[in-house]
Amino acid sequence: MPKRKKKDRAPLISSDGHRIRGRIWIEGPEGTFLGYGRVVLLERIREYGSISEAARSMNMSYKHAWDLVNSMNRQSKEPLVITFTGGKKGGGAKLTEAGEKAIETFWKLYQKFQEFLKEEEKSLNF
Amino acid sequence: MPKRKKKDRAPLISSDGHRIRGRIWIEGPEGTFLGYGRVVLLERIREYGSISEAARSMNMSYKHAWDLVNSMNRQSKEPLVITFTGGKKGGGAKLTEAGEKAIETFWKLYQKFQEFLKEEEKSLNF
Repeated sequence: MPKRKKKDRAPLISSDGHRIRGRIWIEGPEGTFLGYGRVVLLERIREYGSISEAARSMNMSYKHAWDLVNSMNRQSKEPLVITFTGGKKGGGAKLTEAGEKAIETFWKLYQKFQEFLKEEEKSLNF
Repeated sequence: MPKRKKKDRAPLISSDGHRIRGRIWIEGPEGTFLGYGRVVLLERIREYGSISEAARSMNMSYKHAWDLVNSMNRQSKEPLVITFTGGKKGGGAKLTEAGEKAIETFWKLYQKFQEFLKEEEKSLNF
């Protein structure tokens, strides 16, 4: 997932040629719980209704996507993603309310972090 | 420098078992200009008056330390570190005023970032 590293950082904002950059993520009892890549995966699961299709859209292996989903589900009071079988397409995956809330929480945090970086950058002078 | 990664992150603060963590650094025209490891190197140069002794104290190669010092000096209007020859000890290195200012600027930013993380963490609920 070569795109991730770049996107994971805050955008460049120039100030005297110097910029503040950073990364932010949420940890749970096992380590990483929610970061940029995981949140994009959740959004793709919402979009495709399928973990395998979501994974494919991100050039991520099915196994890796499942590992991430399981890691998120284990580290939250309520699972973020549920899978189901049957129906016309033979099953799929969808976000729970907790999954929707996780996406919202992360992007709000991410946005605030970008504002923090932008604000702090104003006083740089090197 | 295996210690770096851990220290580079904000400290853990528990909130419902979840924590926000992050990294922050300043970029210049060439890429990284100032981050946690570089600032510790500057402080060690101030302490030891020598780039080689500063490097040794951090288990960093002399070449790597020089590369970092040159990278910082090139990306600042004023050099952060100057070297000199002669004198009783046959030369050494010391911080300029710009070097002192860089250390101060980075730790202030780092401190504010930690406060930001701590504050945001209060509203986590997973």
